[in-house]
Amino acid sequence: MSHKIGYLGPKGTFTKVAVDALFNGEKKYSYTTIPECIDAVDQGHVTYAVVPLENAIEGSVNLTIDYIIQKKRLKIIGEVDVPIRQHLMVHLDNQHNWKEIEKVYSHPHAIAQCHRFLHAELKRASVEYATSTGAASQYVSEHPELNIASIGNHLAALEYGLTIVKKDIHDFDNNHTRFVILHKGDTDHSPRKLKVKGYKTTLMITLPTDHPGALHQVLSAFAWRGINLSKIESRPMKTGLGNYFFIVDIEKKWDDILIPNSIAELEAIGCSIEILGSYPYYFYES
Amino acid sequence: MSHKIGYLGPKGTFTKVAVDALFNGEKKYSYTTIPECIDAVDQGHVTYAVVPLENAIEGSVNLTIDYIIQKKRLKIIGEVDVPIRQHLMVHLDNQHNWKEIEKVYSHPHAIAQCHRFLHAELKRASVEYATSTGAASQYVSEHPELNIASIGNHLAALEYGLTIVKKDIHDFDNNHTRFVILHKGDTDHSPRKLKVKGYKTTLMITLPTDHPGALHQVLSAFAWRGINLSKIESRPMKTGLGNYFFIVDIEKKWDDILIPNSIAELEAIGCSIEILGSYPYYFYES
Repeated sequence: MSHKIGYLGPKGTFTKVAVDALFNGEKKYSYTTIPECIDAVDQGHVTYAVVPLENAIEGSVNLTIDYIIQKKRLKIIGEVDVPIRQHLMVHLDNQHNWKEIEKVYSHPHAIAQCHRFLHAELKRASVEYATSTGAASQYVSEHPELNIASIGNHLAALEYGLTIVKKDIHDFDNNHTRFVILHKGDTDHSPRKLKVKGYKTTLMITLPTDHPGALHQVLSAFAWRGINLSKIESRPMKTGLGNYFFIVDIEKKWDDILIPNSIAELEAIGCSIEILGSYPYYFYES
Repeated sequence: MSHKIGYLGPKGTFTKVAVDALFNGEKKYSYTTIPECIDAVDQGHVTYAVVPLENAIEGSVNLTIDYIIQKKRLKIIGEVDVPIRQHLMVHLDNQHNWKEIEKVYSHPHAIAQCHRFLHAELKRASVEYATSTGAASQYVSEHPELNIASIGNHLAALEYGLTIVKKDIHDFDNNHTRFVILHKGDTDHSPRKLKVKGYKTTLMITLPTDHPGALHQVLSAFAWRGINLSKIESRPMKTGLGNYFFIVDIEKKWDDILIPNSIAELEAIGCSIEILGSYPYYFYES
Protein backbone atom coordinates (compact mmCIF):
# COMPACT_ATOMS: atom_id res chain seq x y z
CA MET A 1 0.00 0.00 0.00
CA SER A 2 1.28 3.43 -0.94
CA HIS A 3 1.07 6.28 1.56
CA LYS A 4 1.20 10.01 1.00
CA ILE A 5 4.09 11.68 2.81
CA GLY A 6 4.54 15.41 3.35
CA TYR A 7 7.93 17.01 3.97
CA LEU A 8 9.53 20.43 4.36
CA GLY A 9 10.76 21.17 0.85
CA PRO A 10 11.77 22.10 -1.74
CA LYS A 11 13.66 19.27 -3.43
CA GLY A 12 17.30 19.03 -2.48
CA THR A 13 16.78 19.95 1.18
CA PHE A 14 18.05 17.91 4.11
CA THR A 15 14.44 17.03 4.96
CA LYS A 16 14.18 15.41 1.54
CA VAL A 17 17.32 13.41 2.34
CA ALA A 18 15.59 12.21 5.53
CA VAL A 19 12.34 11.34 3.72
CA ASP A 20 14.16 9.35 1.05
CA ALA A 21 16.12 7.48 3.70
CA LEU A 22 12.96 6.62 5.64
CA PHE A 23 10.41 5.83 2.96
CA ASN A 24 10.53 3.92 -0.28
CA GLY A 25 8.64 4.90 -3.41
CA GLU A 26 5.57 6.36 -1.70
CA LYS A 27 4.12 9.63 -2.96
CA LYS A 28 6.08 12.52 -1.46
CA TYR A 29 4.70 16.05 -1.28
CA SER A 30 6.83 19.11 -0.65
CA TYR A 31 5.50 21.87 1.68
CA THR A 32 7.11 25.24 2.04
CA THR A 33 6.75 25.80 5.78
CA ILE A 34 6.73 23.56 8.85
CA PRO A 35 3.17 24.58 9.91
CA GLU A 36 1.81 23.80 6.41
CA CYS A 37 3.46 20.42 6.54
CA ILE A 38 2.07 19.63 10.01
CA ASP A 39 -1.40 20.87 9.02
CA ALA A 40 -1.33 18.57 6.00
CA VAL A 41 -1.07 15.48 8.18
CA ASP A 42 -3.51 16.87 10.77
CA GLN A 43 -6.13 17.48 8.06
CA GLY A 44 -5.54 14.11 6.41
CA HIS A 45 -4.04 15.35 3.13
CA VAL A 46 -1.01 13.16 3.85
CA THR A 47 -0.61 10.16 6.16
CA TYR A 48 2.85 11.10 7.45
CA ALA A 49 4.85 14.30 7.74
CA VAL A 50 8.62 14.54 8.09
CA VAL A 51 9.90 17.72 9.76
CA PRO A 52 13.13 18.81 11.46
CA LEU A 53 13.02 18.82 15.28
CA GLU A 54 16.56 19.94 16.16
CA ASN A 55 19.49 21.77 14.56
CA ALA A 56 17.73 22.44 11.30
CA ILE A 57 19.36 24.33 8.46
CA GLU A 58 16.24 25.36 6.63
CA GLY A 59 13.44 25.53 9.15
CA SER A 60 12.73 27.20 12.46
CA VAL A 61 12.73 24.22 14.75
CA ASN A 62 10.99 25.98 17.62
CA LEU A 63 8.00 26.22 15.33
CA THR A 64 7.92 22.45 15.07
CA ILE A 65 7.60 22.02 18.82
CA ASP A 66 5.04 24.85 19.03
CA TYR A 67 2.87 23.25 16.37
CA ILE A 68 3.20 19.67 17.57
CA ILE A 69 2.03 20.80 20.99
CA GLN A 70 -1.02 22.50 19.45
CA LYS A 71 -1.94 19.45 17.38
CA LYS A 72 -2.51 16.97 20.14
CA ARG A 73 -3.83 14.28 17.83
CA LEU A 74 -0.46 14.00 16.12
CA LYS A 75 2.22 11.76 17.56
CA ILE A 76 5.90 11.37 16.84
CA ILE A 77 6.14 7.83 15.48
CA GLY A 78 9.76 7.69 14.33
CA GLU A 79 13.05 9.57 14.21
CA VAL A 80 16.22 9.68 12.18
CA ASP A 81 19.40 11.71 12.69
CA VAL A 82 20.85 12.86 9.38
CA PRO A 83 24.47 14.05 9.19
CA ILE A 84 24.63 17.58 7.81
CA ARG A 85 27.34 17.61 5.17
CA GLN A 86 27.68 20.70 3.03
CA HIS A 87 29.39 20.63 -0.35
CA LEU A 88 30.48 23.26 -2.84
CA MET A 89 28.95 22.61 -6.24
CA VAL A 90 29.14 24.22 -9.66
CA HIS A 91 27.82 23.77 -13.17
CA LEU A 92 29.76 21.13 -15.11
CA ASP A 93 31.17 23.84 -17.41
CA ASN A 94 32.90 25.54 -14.47
CA GLN A 95 34.32 22.54 -12.64
CA HIS A 96 37.95 23.30 -13.52
CA ASN A 97 38.09 26.90 -12.37
CA TRP A 98 36.19 26.75 -9.10
CA LYS A 99 39.01 28.52 -7.24
CA GLU A 100 38.06 31.65 -9.22
CA ILE A 101 34.38 31.48 -8.31
CA GLU A 102 32.93 34.97 -8.06
CA LYS A 103 29.76 34.33 -6.10
CA VAL A 104 28.54 31.64 -3.74
CA TYR A 105 24.78 31.10 -3.38
CA SER A 106 23.01 29.37 -0.50
CA HIS A 107 20.60 29.60 2.39
CA PRO A 108 22.00 32.01 5.03
CA HIS A 109 22.30 29.20 7.61
CA ALA A 110 24.29 27.03 5.19
CA ILE A 111 26.58 29.97 4.38
CA ALA A 112 27.06 30.56 8.10
CA GLN A 113 27.93 26.89 8.63
CA CYS A 114 30.73 27.13 6.05
CA HIS A 115 32.09 30.42 7.36
CA ARG A 116 35.68 29.23 7.91
CA PHE A 117 35.96 27.48 4.55
CA LEU A 118 34.68 30.52 2.65
CA HIS A 119 37.01 32.78 4.57
CA ALA A 120 40.07 30.56 3.96
CA GLU A 121 39.51 29.21 0.44
CA LEU A 122 37.23 31.63 -1.38
CA LYS A 123 38.16 34.96 0.13
CA ARG A 124 37.52 36.82 -3.13
CA ALA A 125 34.06 35.39 -3.70
CA SER A 126 31.03 37.33 -2.59
CA VAL A 127 28.04 35.68 -0.97
CA GLU A 128 24.46 35.76 -2.20
CA TYR A 129 21.54 34.50 -0.13
CA ALA A 130 18.84 32.18 -1.37
CA THR A 131 15.73 30.94 0.42
CA SER A 132 16.96 27.34 0.41
CA THR A 133 20.00 25.32 -0.59
CA GLY A 134 17.75 23.81 -3.28
CA ALA A 135 16.80 27.20 -4.76
CA ALA A 136 20.48 28.24 -4.78
CA SER A 137 21.50 25.08 -6.62
CA GLN A 138 18.71 25.52 -9.15
CA TYR A 139 19.93 29.04 -9.90
CA VAL A 140 23.51 27.83 -10.40
CA SER A 141 22.31 25.06 -12.74
CA GLU A 142 20.45 27.61 -14.87
CA HIS A 143 23.45 29.95 -15.26
CA PRO A 144 26.40 28.03 -16.74
CA GLU A 145 27.69 31.30 -18.22
CA LEU A 146 28.45 32.65 -14.71
CA ASN A 147 31.33 31.38 -12.58
CA ILE A 148 29.19 30.82 -9.50
CA ALA A 149 28.71 28.02 -6.98
CA SER A 150 26.12 26.87 -4.49
CA ILE A 151 26.43 25.21 -1.10
CA GLY A 152 24.14 22.27 -0.41
CA ASN A 153 23.92 18.54 0.17
CA HIS A 154 24.58 15.68 -2.26
CA LEU A 155 20.88 15.49 -3.15
CA ALA A 156 20.88 19.12 -4.34
CA ALA A 157 23.82 18.30 -6.65
CA LEU A 158 21.98 15.25 -7.96
CA GLU A 159 18.64 17.03 -8.31
CA TYR A 160 20.04 19.97 -10.28
CA GLY A 161 22.84 18.16 -12.14
CA LEU A 162 25.69 20.07 -10.48
CA THR A 163 29.27 18.87 -9.94
CA ILE A 164 30.60 18.78 -6.39
CA VAL A 165 34.06 20.41 -6.50
CA LYS A 166 34.75 20.44 -2.76
CA LYS A 167 33.21 18.01 -0.28
CA ASP A 168 32.43 18.60 3.40
CA ILE A 169 33.11 22.31 3.64
CA HIS A 170 31.10 22.80 6.86
CA ASP A 171 33.02 24.19 9.86
CA PHE A 172 31.96 21.62 12.44
CA ASP A 173 32.01 17.88 11.98
CA ASN A 174 29.37 15.69 13.54
CA ASN A 175 26.62 18.14 12.78
CA HIS A 176 23.33 16.29 12.68
CA THR A 177 19.74 17.27 12.21
CA ARG A 178 17.08 15.26 13.95
CA PHE A 179 13.99 14.60 11.84
CA VAL A 180 10.75 13.13 13.15
CA ILE A 181 7.83 11.42 11.47
CA LEU A 182 4.41 12.73 12.56
CA HIS A 183 1.25 10.67 12.21
CA LYS A 184 -2.36 10.94 13.33
CA GLY A 185 -3.51 8.11 15.54
CA ASP A 186 -1.81 4.88 16.45
CA THR A 187 -2.12 2.87 13.25
CA ASP A 188 1.30 2.87 11.69
CA HIS A 189 1.55 0.17 9.06
CA SER A 190 4.05 1.83 6.78
CA PRO A 191 7.29 -0.06 6.19
CA ARG A 192 10.55 1.76 6.96
CA LYS A 193 13.73 1.27 4.98
CA LEU A 194 15.98 1.75 8.01
CA LYS A 195 17.00 -0.51 10.89
CA VAL A 196 15.83 0.33 14.41
CA LYS A 197 18.62 1.64 16.64
CA GLY A 198 16.58 2.11 19.81
CA TYR A 199 13.45 3.62 21.30
CA LYS A 200 12.55 6.98 22.80
CA THR A 201 9.58 8.50 24.60
CA THR A 202 9.15 12.26 24.35
CA LEU A 203 7.25 14.12 27.06
CA MET A 204 6.22 17.71 27.54
CA ILE A 205 6.32 18.52 31.26
CA THR A 206 4.89 21.69 32.76
CA LEU A 207 5.96 22.45 36.33
CA PRO A 208 3.33 23.53 38.88
CA THR A 209 5.25 26.59 40.07
CA ASP A 210 8.59 28.13 39.35
CA HIS A 211 10.23 27.25 42.66
CA PRO A 212 13.92 26.42 43.10
CA GLY A 213 14.57 22.73 42.66
CA ALA A 214 11.24 21.90 40.98
CA LEU A 215 13.07 20.57 37.95
CA HIS A 216 15.38 18.61 40.22
CA GLN A 217 12.33 16.95 41.77
CA VAL A 218 10.98 16.05 38.33
CA LEU A 219 14.27 14.47 37.30
CA SER A 220 14.33 12.45 40.53
CA ALA A 221 11.24 10.57 39.37
CA PHE A 222 13.23 9.28 36.41
CA ALA A 223 16.68 9.03 38.02
CA TRP A 224 15.81 6.66 40.87
CA ARG A 225 14.11 4.32 38.38
CA GLY A 226 17.31 4.23 36.33
CA ILE A 227 15.60 5.88 33.36
CA ASN A 228 18.12 7.83 31.29
CA LEU A 229 17.25 11.13 29.62
CA SER A 230 18.84 11.72 26.24
CA LYS A 231 17.55 15.27 25.98
CA ILE A 232 16.15 17.97 28.18
CA GLU A 233 15.18 21.41 27.01
CA SER A 234 13.32 24.18 28.77
CA ARG A 235 11.07 26.27 26.55
CA PRO A 236 9.14 29.43 27.41
CA MET A 237 5.37 29.06 27.71
CA LYS A 238 3.41 31.09 25.17
CA THR A 239 1.11 32.27 27.92
CA GLY A 240 3.52 34.70 29.51
CA LEU A 241 7.10 35.39 30.48
CA GLY A 242 8.91 33.53 33.21
CA ASN A 243 6.99 30.28 32.78
CA TYR A 244 8.70 27.31 31.26
CA PHE A 245 7.83 23.85 30.16
CA PHE A 246 10.30 21.06 29.48
CA ILE A 247 10.70 18.74 26.57
CA VAL A 248 12.26 15.54 27.84
CA ASP A 249 13.42 12.53 25.82
CA ILE A 250 13.49 9.28 27.75
CA GLU A 251 15.75 6.56 26.37
CA LYS A 252 13.07 3.93 26.74
CA LYS A 253 10.15 2.40 24.90
CA TRP A 254 6.77 2.87 26.50
CA ASP A 255 6.19 0.18 29.15
CA ASP A 256 3.35 -0.71 31.50
CA ILE A 257 5.06 0.12 34.78
CA LEU A 258 8.06 2.47 34.93
CA ILE A 259 7.00 5.29 32.59
CA PRO A 260 3.30 5.32 33.61
CA ASN A 261 4.30 5.32 37.29
CA SER A 262 6.74 8.21 36.79
CA ILE A 263 4.04 10.19 35.03
CA ALA A 264 1.44 9.40 37.70
CA GLU A 265 3.81 10.63 40.42
CA LEU A 266 4.67 13.80 38.53
CA GLU A 267 0.98 14.53 38.06
CA ALA A 268 0.44 13.90 41.76
CA ILE A 269 2.94 16.67 42.63
CA GLY A 270 1.13 19.07 40.28
CA CYS A 271 2.97 18.67 36.97
CA SER A 272 1.10 18.50 33.71
CA ILE A 273 2.34 15.91 31.22
CA GLU A 274 1.74 15.45 27.49
CA ILE A 275 3.05 12.38 25.69
CA LEU A 276 4.34 13.58 22.32
CA GLY A 277 5.25 10.08 21.22
CA SER A 278 6.96 6.76 22.03
CA TYR A 279 8.79 5.65 18.94
CA PRO A 280 11.77 3.92 17.32
CA TYR A 281 14.79 5.83 16.10
CA TYR A 282 16.64 4.51 13.12
CA PHE A 283 20.18 4.09 11.87
CA TYR A 284 20.71 6.52 9.02
CA GLU A 285 21.97 5.02 5.80
CA SER A 286 22.46 7.26 2.79
CA MET B 1 32.89 57.65 24.38
CA SER B 2 31.44 56.01 21.33
CA HIS B 3 31.80 52.25 20.81
CA LYS B 4 31.49 50.19 17.68
CA ILE B 5 28.71 47.61 17.84
CA GLY B 6 28.18 44.72 15.46
CA TYR B 7 24.81 43.05 14.92
CA LEU B 8 23.13 40.44 12.76
CA GLY B 9 21.61 42.53 9.98
CA PRO B 10 20.37 43.81 7.64
CA LYS B 11 18.45 46.88 8.78
CA GLY B 12 14.89 46.20 9.84
CA THR B 13 15.67 42.88 11.55
CA PHE B 14 14.71 42.00 15.11
CA THR B 15 18.39 42.08 16.07
CA LYS B 16 18.45 45.73 14.99
CA VAL B 17 15.45 46.35 17.24
CA ALA B 18 17.45 44.83 20.13
CA VAL B 19 20.58 46.87 19.33
CA ASP B 20 18.62 50.12 19.18
CA ALA B 21 16.94 49.33 22.48
CA LEU B 22 20.27 48.56 24.17
CA PHE B 23 22.62 51.18 22.79
CA ASN B 24 22.31 54.85 22.09
CA GLY B 25 23.93 56.62 19.15
CA GLU B 26 27.08 54.46 18.95
CA LYS B 27 28.30 53.28 15.57
CA LYS B 28 26.38 50.18 14.55
CA TYR B 29 27.65 47.74 11.93
CA SER B 30 25.48 45.15 10.22
CA TYR B 31 26.88 41.63 9.62
CA THR B 32 25.19 39.06 7.46
CA THR B 33 25.82 35.90 9.49
CA ILE B 34 26.16 35.10 13.18
CA PRO B 35 29.76 33.78 12.85
CA GLU B 36 30.87 36.95 11.02
CA CYS B 37 29.33 39.04 13.76
CA ILE B 38 31.02 37.03 16.53
CA ASP B 39 34.36 37.07 14.68
CA ALA B 40 34.13 40.85 14.39
CA VAL B 41 34.16 41.27 18.17
CA ASP B 42 36.73 38.50 18.65
CA GLN B 43 39.10 40.20 16.21
CA GLY B 44 38.52 43.65 17.66
CA HIS B 45 36.72 45.22 14.70
CA VAL B 46 33.83 46.03 17.04
CA THR B 47 33.71 46.29 20.83
CA TYR B 48 30.34 44.58 21.26
CA ALA B 49 28.27 42.18 19.21
CA VAL B 50 24.53 41.62 19.56
CA VAL B 51 23.28 38.22 18.38
CA PRO B 52 20.16 36.10 18.95
CA LEU B 53 20.56 33.26 21.44
CA GLU B 54 17.08 31.72 21.46
CA ASN B 55 13.97 31.60 19.25
CA ALA B 56 15.42 33.66 16.44
CA ILE B 57 13.51 34.44 13.28
CA GLU B 58 16.44 35.25 11.07
CA GLY B 59 19.42 33.34 12.39
CA SER B 60 20.31 29.79 13.29
CA VAL B 61 20.62 30.07 17.03
CA ASN B 62 22.50 26.83 17.48
CA LEU B 63 25.30 28.48 15.55
CA THR B 64 25.49 31.19 18.19
CA ILE B 65 26.13 28.67 20.98
CA ASP B 66 28.59 26.72 18.80
CA TYR B 67 30.59 29.84 18.06
CA ILE B 68 30.49 31.32 21.56
CA ILE B 69 31.89 28.05 22.90
CA GLN B 70 34.75 28.20 20.38
CA LYS B 71 35.61 31.80 21.23
CA LYS B 72 36.47 31.41 24.86
CA ARG B 73 37.70 34.98 25.22
CA LEU B 74 34.21 36.32 24.58
CA LYS B 75 31.73 36.64 27.40
CA ILE B 76 28.03 37.31 27.50
CA ILE B 77 27.78 40.67 29.27
CA GLY B 78 24.10 41.48 28.88
CA GLU B 79 20.76 40.22 27.64
CA VAL B 80 17.43 41.53 26.47
CA ASP B 81 14.23 39.68 25.53
CA VAL B 82 12.50 41.33 22.59
CA PRO B 83 8.83 40.56 21.84
CA ILE B 84 8.45 39.24 18.30
CA ARG B 85 5.54 41.10 16.71
CA GLN B 86 4.93 40.62 13.02
CA HIS B 87 2.97 43.14 10.96
CA LEU B 88 1.59 43.19 7.44
CA MET B 89 2.88 46.22 5.55
CA VAL B 90 2.36 47.69 2.09
CA HIS B 91 3.41 50.65 0.00
CA LEU B 92 1.42 53.80 0.84
CA ASP B 93 -0.26 53.65 -2.61
CA ASN B 94 -1.80 50.27 -1.78
CA GLN B 95 -2.98 50.85 1.78
CA HIS B 96 -6.69 50.87 0.91
CA ASN B 97 -6.85 47.62 -1.00
CA TRP B 98 -4.71 45.33 1.11
CA LYS B 99 -7.43 42.68 1.25
CA GLU B 100 -6.76 42.11 -2.46
CA ILE B 101 -3.01 41.67 -2.02
CA GLU B 102 -1.67 39.21 -4.58
CA LYS B 103 1.66 38.29 -3.05
CA VAL B 104 3.16 38.36 0.44
CA TYR B 105 6.96 38.58 0.79
CA SER B 106 9.00 37.67 3.85
CA HIS B 107 11.62 35.44 5.39
CA PRO B 108 10.36 31.82 5.47
CA HIS B 109 10.35 31.76 9.29
CA ALA B 110 8.25 34.94 9.47
CA ILE B 111 5.80 33.51 6.92
CA ALA B 112 5.60 30.34 8.98
CA GLN B 113 4.89 32.36 12.13
CA CYS B 114 1.90 34.02 10.45
CA HIS B 115 0.53 30.81 8.98
CA ARG B 116 -2.95 31.06 10.50
CA PHE B 117 -3.44 34.70 9.60
CA LEU B 118 -2.42 34.15 5.98
CA HIS B 119 -4.68 31.14 5.75
CA ALA B 120 -7.69 32.95 7.23
CA GLU B 121 -7.36 36.49 5.85
CA LEU B 122 -5.31 36.31 2.67
CA LYS B 123 -6.23 32.93 1.28
CA ARG B 124 -5.92 34.15 -2.33
CA ALA B 125 -2.48 35.66 -1.90
CA SER B 126 0.58 33.62 -2.84
CA VAL B 127 3.73 33.64 -0.78
CA GLU B 128 7.21 34.62 -1.93
CA TYR B 129 10.33 34.03 0.15
CA ALA B 130 13.00 36.59 0.87
CA THR B 131 16.27 36.18 2.74
CA SER B 132 15.17 38.53 5.52
CA THR B 133 12.14 40.53 6.58
CA GLY B 134 14.21 43.62 5.74
CA ALA B 135 14.94 42.48 2.16
CA ALA B 136 11.24 41.68 1.66
CA SER B 137 10.18 45.11 2.88
CA GLN B 138 12.75 46.81 0.66
CA TYR B 139 11.36 44.97 -2.37
CA VAL B 140 7.79 46.04 -1.51
CA SER B 141 8.90 49.66 -1.10
CA GLU B 142 10.50 49.62 -4.57
CA HIS B 143 7.40 48.24 -6.33
CA PRO B 144 4.41 50.51 -5.65
CA GLU B 145 2.88 49.40 -8.96
CA LEU B 146 2.36 45.86 -7.58
CA ASN B 147 -0.29 45.03 -5.00
CA ILE B 148 2.09 43.17 -2.72
CA ALA B 149 2.87 43.18 1.00
CA SER B 150 5.68 42.17 3.31
CA ILE B 151 5.70 40.76 6.82
CA GLY B 152 8.13 42.27 9.29
CA ASN B 153 8.53 44.33 12.45
CA HIS B 154 7.77 48.02 13.02
CA LEU B 155 11.39 48.93 12.28
CA ALA B 156 11.19 47.39 8.80
CA ALA B 157 8.11 49.56 8.10
CA LEU B 158 9.94 52.64 9.36
CA GLU B 159 13.18 51.83 7.55
CA TYR B 160 11.53 51.29 4.16
CA GLY B 161 8.67 53.78 4.49
CA LEU B 162 5.87 51.19 4.39
CA THR B 163 2.40 51.46 5.91
CA ILE B 164 1.36 48.81 8.44
CA VAL B 165 -2.16 47.71 7.42
CA LYS B 166 -2.55 44.87 9.92
CA LYS B 167 -0.75 44.70 13.25
CA ASP B 168 0.30 41.60 15.18
CA ILE B 169 -0.50 38.94 12.64
CA HIS B 170 1.74 36.26 14.25
CA ASP B 171 0.02 33.04 15.35
CA PHE B 172 1.37 32.87 18.89
CA ASP B 173 1.40 35.70 21.39
CA ASN B 174 4.23 36.08 23.85
CA ASN B 175 6.83 35.10 21.32
CA HIS B 176 10.17 36.52 22.40
CA THR B 177 13.68 36.34 21.09
CA ARG B 178 16.53 36.46 23.52
CA PHE B 179 19.47 38.58 22.40
CA VAL B 180 22.85 38.71 24.11
CA ILE B 181 25.68 41.21 24.06
CA LEU B 182 29.13 39.65 23.55
CA HIS B 183 32.32 41.38 24.60
CA LYS B 184 36.01 40.49 24.87
CA GLY B 185 37.41 40.75 28.37
CA ASP B 186 35.88 42.17 31.49
CA THR B 187 36.03 45.90 30.84
CA ASP B 188 32.48 46.95 30.08
CA HIS B 189 32.11 50.70 30.36
CA SER B 190 29.37 51.20 27.81
CA PRO B 191 26.17 52.80 29.08
CA ARG B 192 22.94 50.89 28.49
CA LYS B 193 19.64 52.57 27.79
CA LEU B 194 17.60 49.92 29.60
CA LYS B 195 16.89 49.23 33.27
CA VAL B 196 18.31 46.10 34.87
CA LYS B 197 15.66 43.47 35.60
CA GLY B 198 17.93 40.86 37.19
CA TYR B 199 21.11 38.86 36.81
CA LYS B 200 22.02 35.54 35.23
CA THR B 201 25.04 33.29 35.05
CA THR B 202 25.33 30.99 32.04
CA LEU B 203 27.38 27.80 32.31
CA MET B 204 28.32 25.10 29.86
CA ILE B 205 28.47 21.79 31.72
CA THR B 206 29.90 18.60 30.22
CA LEU B 207 29.08 15.41 32.10
CA PRO B 208 31.86 12.89 32.79
CA THR B 209 29.95 9.88 31.45
CA ASP B 210 26.53 9.29 30.05
CA HIS B 211 25.18 7.33 33.03
CA PRO B 212 21.55 7.42 34.20
CA GLY B 213 20.97 10.17 36.71
CA ALA B 214 24.18 12.11 35.97
CA LEU B 215 22.18 15.18 35.12
CA HIS B 216 20.13 14.72 38.27
CA GLN B 217 23.35 14.76 40.29
CA VAL B 218 24.45 17.99 38.59
CA LEU B 219 21.16 19.70 39.35
CA SER B 220 21.41 18.63 42.99
CA ALA B 221 24.47 20.85 43.40
CA PHE B 222 22.31 23.85 42.56
CA ALA B 223 19.01 22.69 44.06
CA TRP B 224 20.17 22.18 47.65
CA ARG B 225 21.75 25.64 47.63
CA GLY B 226 18.41 27.12 46.59
CA ILE B 227 19.84 28.31 43.26
CA ASN B 228 17.10 28.45 40.62
CA LEU B 229 17.72 27.54 37.00
CA SER B 230 15.86 29.61 34.43
CA LYS B 231 17.00 27.49 31.52
CA ILE B 232 18.47 24.09 30.84
CA GLU B 233 19.22 22.72 27.44
CA SER B 234 21.11 19.62 26.38
CA ARG B 235 23.10 19.96 23.18
CA PRO B 236 24.97 17.30 21.25
CA MET B 237 28.77 17.46 21.42
CA LYS B 238 30.41 18.06 18.06
CA THR B 239 32.91 15.31 18.83
CA GLY B 240 30.53 12.43 18.25
CA LEU B 241 27.05 11.10 18.66
CA GLY B 242 25.58 10.22 22.01
CA ASN B 243 27.54 12.80 23.99
CA TYR B 244 25.82 15.86 25.35
CA PHE B 245 26.71 19.01 27.11
CA PHE B 246 24.30 21.28 28.94
CA ILE B 247 23.74 24.99 28.79
CA VAL B 248 22.39 26.11 32.14
CA ASP B 249 21.19 29.58 33.14
CA ILE B 250 21.37 30.29 36.85
CA GLU B 251 19.12 33.06 38.14
CA LYS B 252 21.90 34.61 40.14
CA LYS B 253 24.71 37.12 39.85
CA TRP B 254 28.22 35.73 40.31
CA ASP B 255 29.06 35.54 44.02
CA ASP B 256 32.09 34.47 46.03
CA ILE B 257 30.62 31.41 47.70
CA LEU B 258 27.57 29.65 46.26
CA ILE B 259 28.35 29.56 42.54
CA PRO B 260 32.10 28.90 42.91
CA ASN B 261 31.39 26.10 45.40
CA SER B 262 28.82 24.50 43.11
CA ILE B 263 31.31 24.59 40.25
CA ALA B 264 34.13 23.20 42.41
CA GLU B 265 31.94 20.27 43.47
CA LEU B 266 30.81 19.56 39.90
CA GLU B 267 34.44 19.55 38.78
CA ALA B 268 35.28 17.22 41.65
CA ILE B 269 32.78 14.65 40.37
CA GLY B 270 34.31 14.87 36.88
CA CYS B 271 32.23 17.53 35.13
CA SER B 272 33.87 20.14 32.94
CA ILE B 273 32.53 23.69 33.33
CA GLU B 274 32.88 26.78 31.16
CA ILE B 275 31.53 30.12 32.37
CA LEU B 276 29.93 31.81 29.35
CA GLY B 277 29.06 34.92 31.32
CA SER B 278 27.53 36.45 34.45
CA TYR B 279 25.51 39.44 33.38
CA PRO B 280 22.46 41.68 33.83
CA TYR B 281 19.30 41.21 31.82
CA TYR B 282 17.27 44.25 30.96
CA PHE B 283 13.65 45.33 30.75
CA TYR B 284 12.82 45.79 27.08
CA GLU B 285 11.35 49.17 26.16
CA SER B 286 10.54 49.90 22.52
